[in-house]
Amino acid sequence: MALTASRLVMTKFLRLGNHKGVAIVSRHCFHRTAIMGVTDAEFTAAKDRVGTLTQDPGNEVKLKMYALFKQVTVGKCNAPKPGAFDFVGKAKWSAWNDLGDMTKDDARQKYVDVVDDLVANDPGAQASAPAAATASQSDTAGSSVGGYENLKVSVDRGVCTIMMNRPKKKNALNRETYEEIIKALDSSGKDDSVVFSVLTGAGDFYSGGNDLNNFMSITPDTMKQAAREGGELLQRFVAAFIDFPKPLVAAVNGPAVGIPVTSLALCDVVYATDRATFHTPFSSLGQSPEACSSYLFPQIMGQAKANEVLLFGRKLTAQEAYDRGLVTEVFPDATFQQEIEKKFNEFAKLPRQSLRLSKNLIRGAEREKLHQVNKEECELLEERWTSEECIQAIMDFFASKSKL
Amino acid sequence: MALTASRLVMTKFLRLGNHKGVAIVSRHCFHRTAIMGVTDAEFTAAKDRVGTLTQDPGNEVKLKMYALFKQVTVGKCNAPKPGAFDFVGKAKWSAWNDLGDMTKDDARQKYVDVVDDLVANDPGAQASAPAAATASQSDTAGSSVGGYENLKVSVDRGVCTIMMNRPKKKNALNRETYEEIIKALDSSGKDDSVVFSVLTGAGDFYSGGNDLNNFMSITPDTMKQAAREGGELLQRFVAAFIDFPKPLVAAVNGPAVGIPVTSLALCDVVYATDRATFHTPFSSLGQSPEACSSYLFPQIMGQAKANEVLLFGRKLTAQEAYDRGLVTEVFPDATFQQEIEKKFNEFAKLPRQSLRLSKNLIRGAEREKLHQVNKEECELLEERWTSEECIQAIMDFFASKSKL
Amino acid sequence: MALTASRLVMTKFLRLGNHKGVAIVSRHCFHRTAIMGVTDAEFTAAKDRVGTLTQDPGNEVKLKMYALFKQVTVGKCNAPKPGAFDFVGKAKWSAWNDLGDMTKDDARQKYVDVVDDLVANDPGAQASAPAAATASQSDTAGSSVGGYENLKVSVDRGVCTIMMNRPKKKNALNRETYEEIIKALDSSGKDDSVVFSVLTGAGDFYSGGNDLNNFMSITPDTMKQAAREGGELLQRFVAAFIDFPKPLVAAVNGPAVGIPVTSLALCDVVYATDRATFHTPFSSLGQSPEACSSYLFPQIMGQAKANEVLLFGRKLTAQEAYDRGLVTEVFPDATFQQEIEKKFNEFAKLPRQSLRLSKNLIRGAEREKLHQVNKEECELLEERWTSEECIQAIMDFFASKSKL
Repeated sequence: MALTASRLVMTKFLRLGNHKGVAIVSRHCFHRTAIMGVTDAEFTAAKDRVGTLTQDPGNEVKLKMYALFKQVTVGKCNAPKPGAFDFVGKAKWSAWNDLGDMTKDDARQKYVDVVDDLVANDPGAQASAPAAATASQSDTAGSSVGGYENLKVSVDRGVCTIMMNRPKKKNALNRETYEEIIKALDSSGKDDSVVFSVLTGAGDFYSGGNDLNNFMSITPDTMKQAAREGGELLQRFVAAFIDFPKPLVAAVNGPAVGIPVTSLALCDVVYATDRATFHTPFSSLGQSPEACSSYLFPQIMGQAKANEVLLFGRKLTAQEAYDRGLVTEVFPDATFQQEIEKKFNEFAKLPRQSLRLSKNLIRGAEREKLHQVNKEECELLEERWTSEECIQAIMDFFASKSKL
Repeated sequence: MALTASRLVMTKFLRLGNHKGVAIVSRHCFHRTAIMGVTDAEFTAAKDRVGTLTQDPGNEVKLKMYALFKQVTVGKCNAPKPGAFDFVGKAKWSAWNDLGDMTKDDARQKYVDVVDDLVANDPGAQASAPAAATASQSDTAGSSVGGYENLKVSVDRGVCTIMMNRPKKKNALNRETYEEIIKALDSSGKDDSVVFSVLTGAGDFYSGGNDLNNFMSITPDTMKQAAREGGELLQRFVAAFIDFPKPLVAAVNGPAVGIPVTSLALCDVVYATDRATFHTPFSSLGQSPEACSSYLFPQIMGQAKANEVLLFGRKLTAQEAYDRGLVTEVFPDATFQQEIEKKFNEFAKLPRQSLRLSKNLIRGAEREKLHQVNKEECELLEERWTSEECIQAIMDFFASKSKL
Repeated sequence: MALTASRLVMTKFLRLGNHKGVAIVSRHCFHRTAIMGVTDAEFTAAKDRVGTLTQDPGNEVKLKMYALFKQVTVGKCNAPKPGAFDFVGKAKWSAWNDLGDMTKDDARQKYVDVVDDLVANDPGAQASAPAAATASQSDTAGSSVGGYENLKVSVDRGVCTIMMNRPKKKNALNRETYEEIIKALDSSGKDDSVVFSVLTGAGDFYSGGNDLNNFMSITPDTMKQAAREGGELLQRFVAAFIDFPKPLVAAVNGPAVGIPVTSLALCDVVYATDRATFHTPFSSLGQSPEACSSYLFPQIMGQAKANEVLLFGRKLTAQEAYDRGLVTEVFPDATFQQEIEKKFNEFAKLPRQSLRLSKNLIRGAEREKLHQVNKEECELLEERWTSEECIQAIMDFFASKSKL
């Protein structure tokens, strides 16, 4: 499950390795931390198989596994609660402590179940997943643009498709994906063969928002620095939308969470499948709106409906997002791709200078204001990311996630 | 029936006592003005019972009673029509004159009927009215905050409820209620235990708008002064909404008229029962929009729908107010209180600094503009309140109301 | 079929007469260009009847007739393709060339059919058309205001009705109609007997937008000058809406195309028949939005829905225009006139100073901004009208129209 911008900061708390007195929980942590002999053959085998995983299972899962491992090898949590600012330590301690009186046998069983699950879902074992199929279908049309690891970018008859392409991660945005989207927008904006660009996602999700694993190298000591860098990246990302010089269409092919929702207000036209949902849980994570949504959502929906979304985290269905004006049109999932392709083919034939100049006229009146709002939103988020409240909210989120 | 801000001024015209050649129509006017002997015992008894009323019956009723009393005691109106600027005199003369050739017997009968009605509805006789029940129900939860005569203010688990509490007056806003709402907003904004505030009404009405009895001490001579004071009060009232530093939720529990409607655009989230209606009859009363609605309603609804409401006084149903974006969500009346309480409980658990800072971010971008609009609206209203057109419109309204 | 502002410029390309080496295609062109003897009596008779037409058949039809005439008299197109900037020549050459190998007999037959059609539809022969009936109905109420050729302006009990009155041209706006609407707005704004004004169309159409025959005297040499004049006229036209000091109501009695759609956002209230449609094909004609729609449509509809209309030319039904907030209310066509008259009667009784001052308050906050946007939009359109892309888009449009 992916989140909003918060993850930029969260991830650092779970950073593993050089944290005094705390066992390492990195990709290879499980066999390294297995310093005690274990008697159960299955448990040992499971522990070994962890080292064969080719994908990071994510911090929630790793916290669960850490806790179970301790329960098996040590028993009920007997460590003192870490200090207030030892965020990683607290998260791990809580996960372990929450297991309470769980027996070693139970813990061993659950640990093995979790590993079995991870191995069964390892990408190496399932190269023909539906998401991958979708991505390869679109290979047949247009010319693929190289130089992207996390996107699939192609240009076909005037339409540049920028597809977030990490379907197994619900197209969550890690730092590299942010940078690549900035680059893809910049390039397609300058490419004379491109009439307009389309932002979409591979697989079942549009995008789950910020990726948990963004800032694995951040420690509590560098928290302020990391918040600054996160804010700077976010501001550049949003600016790339504000300054995009051609029509920008979002094809929301599935659920969207966090900045993939708020940035829709910076797209010009938004088509959505009826499977799409739109969720912006800023407040519950101790954070605040971004991508100019603090300014544009009230303009689009009226303050009464915008604030329910921005302040109280109301999750919208596709129909609700349409009724509120965030979405231009909703199509049944079965015909979504056909319907939008038909539209794109028509749009691509329109005089491109007119499109560019009209877009510039429409957005130009607000551009300075949008950059100003973007700056203020990012400044507030930088403050939020280092606030006690935000850290606690994220801790609580993870504590609840790490319960089995 | 309560109205818009106009009443601030209107009431002065009906002010009673030191107006040359005009009979007094105050709470105790009826037996004092009964200078002629009357033969009908029922009429005398009725007249006497008027003195036992514990609530002011409102100026419309008093005008009716004045006219009937004159018809019984004098007969058909024989007084000369008062001069152009004798507003009180004209209102009363019109009420009497409109009775035409009504016989004394008929007038006597109607007079007694009116008094019977008033007595039957006197609050002393019905302490267990639904409105009072509602108010006492909410006594059971949260701690009541003292120091309010016209509001019921309580704080419960982070939610401050500001309830307009004059149910027998349809929660109309007299001068004191304006001042108390300003005070309640200011206090709950500063109270660290309050996460957000809720504005609602006791009984069946949300609020009928400005109360007729606001400025009983105003005479035509002090009209300009009264308009200035009314404008100043209104501006401070609206500013208290603009500057409220936390989420402000409106729980519209029934019909709303005038400024209770327009001020919804300054609330952050608006929930309404399906019984609610939204009416802004500015133009028909010779007045103009307030509470930044001249600026915010077009933003929320689009100009085509906003202007029908602001210029032509279209009364909206709850569903229409929802469709136009003034209302966040509508609930069936039977479950309204439950539904919003459930939401409030969830909202109150959210990180409060995030809510406060996000609210500030969202509203902050417009705050200076809103104060400017508020100032301009109040200046225009001060001009309107002393205009011939406005005075005439209100006179016409009262003349039509005082007809039996 | 009438278009958007483009026609201002388009018409000059088809201007006929002093263009070297190109046959003349003006109202009387057909018998003048018939310099070769033709044997078929019907063809000759048809050719002669063209001279009796009292209405310009429009450039599309004239291009068709030109091509057919050449095919009859010369045969398959044997002229060299005109140079890139000879727009008139290219349009005519294309029309002729597109006939390919059509036989002379076929061409002769089609030519006669076209003329028969024109004669049958000549206004002189059908004075009792439904559109004229509508116009004469409204003669019965109110006093007609003289001095207008293309409008029917009347004032009745406080309501000034400004009716675009060229029903056989779908109320397309020629230069004179623009000037007359400016004049009618100015006059009714100053007329103390007028409470508010209503803009509507005679017959089945609201208005088809810019008229093709606006600038018949423009040659390619004076293109830049014509674009400047067109931009200046457009800017004054839009300014007359922005500055109109009273409520302005649009009664959209049928389909609307181009500036009659965009200027609705500058009206205060918009009522529409359910037969109305709203079409803004700027981009397909190489042009850009006008009448402040680049600023107001996103405010009204949200950017996602506005941009589909402004950039991609989505044609809206009456219900869609209502849902997007462009229209205040939709009525069944059968009762449309009754319903709006009932409303207008009520509105006209409202205090007129209040209406005027409230309107000024509501629109005043944005007036400077709107004038600025109007200026920028007109500057862009002037550039567009002389651009290769716009000219080509219009050529393509006409080429497709001139095919039989």
